[in-house]
Amino acid sequence: MKRIPQDTILRLSSYLMALFNISGEMHEISSYRLAKILGINPNQLRKDLSYFGKFGRRGVGYKVEDLIYSLKKILGLDKIWNVALCGLGNLGRALCSYKGFSEQGFLIKVIFENDPKKIGRKFNNIEVLDYKHIEGKIQKYNIQIAVLAVPVGQAQELAEKIYNSGIRFILNFVPLNINLPSDCLIRNVYMSSELTCLSYFLARR
Amino acid sequence: MKRIPQDTILRLSSYLMALFNISGEMHEISSYRLAKILGINPNQLRKDLSYFGKFGRRGVGYKVEDLIYSLKKILGLDKIWNVALCGLGNLGRALCSYKGFSEQGFLIKVIFENDPKKIGRKFNNIEVLDYKHIEGKIQKYNIQIAVLAVPVGQAQELAEKIYNSGIRFILNFVPLNINLPSDCLIRNVYMSSELTCLSYFLARR
Repeated sequence: MKRIPQDTILRLSSYLMALFNISGEMHEISSYRLAKILGINPNQLRKDLSYFGKFGRRGVGYKVEDLIYSLKKILGLDKIWNVALCGLGNLGRALCSYKGFSEQGFLIKVIFENDPKKIGRKFNNIEVLDYKHIEGKIQKYNIQIAVLAVPVGQAQELAEKIYNSGIRFILNFVPLNINLPSDCLIRNVYMSSELTCLSYFLARR
Repeated sequence: MKRIPQDTILRLSSYLMALFNISGEMHEISSYRLAKILGINPNQLRKDLSYFGKFGRRGVGYKVEDLIYSLKKILGLDKIWNVALCGLGNLGRALCSYKGFSEQGFLIKVIFENDPKKIGRKFNNIEVLDYKHIEGKIQKYNIQIAVLAVPVGQAQELAEKIYNSGIRFILNFVPLNINLPSDCLIRNVYMSSELTCLSYFLARR
């Protein structure tokens, strides 16, 4: 299979999201209609799906449940992934309580912190451990993904620790470009950047 | 000025973020070095900036403080924007406590909810009001941006209410493609999509 662009993967995820949202009401949907709900071009939708095989029938469209099943499988959402959350500040606590993650099979198994007041306690029934013990615990809990929600000043050093413990998949919420070897996949969620995009256009009204 | 792509604006925001992060240590930086910190091509950086004028000096680079000042002005971050937060669940509470927003001039002035237990109270000293009163309060607080952090089932209807009250800039955290007329700019933060991108590649290791 050829290498699929990350933007295609992100779009597949939005297709799945839209299908979830309509699955209570509809059993079949045309690519035209689904694309319209998503606000994209139907050709884009068909092209993205075509990387992964044949879906739907000409003139009929996609069976919603079938396409959900296929997309979940393609996106690795038919499996359980173990997640380590780093940082239990406001954002970390929110992420920990966010049901959207666990519903999709991303389970936070352990939390790392460097605040002595938080270490050794539990949050949402999940152990809060010292950064110092990352290496051993990543193994113990069979962690595949680390989520970074620490202060900017701690992020790079911590990311290196995580990398050295064997993790190659990071979801980063810290407003910082983390530098790690290229065999580590980092996806960034920069919430302020999106707000900034709004303010740019607001300032030009 | 020609129409600038939204991706350029998002990158400008990441340049500003990187400059903030180094401003304590460096006074000048070359486009090459800055691009390296950002993990992008220096030509991309220079091209993005060139939309907005001439910055830096050949062979010397950019003055960090000057470029921060210019980027803040370009991005509308030299102003204060009034924000209405819709939804005070886990995510809404985290957003409300997230200092990154207020530090950049995005001030949450009012919160909307439909939970009678939350309405009429205050959170972080901000009034929590009923969805019913959106129209009048958007005017009263001179709101420019609405942040959506409500359950999926409430999002579209609420977005239409917000639109009808005059808001044209929305930051959406709800995993749903919101449909509004095209004169409304919606930026989406789909946190699960980024995790899904990781799981796609994890499943193919």
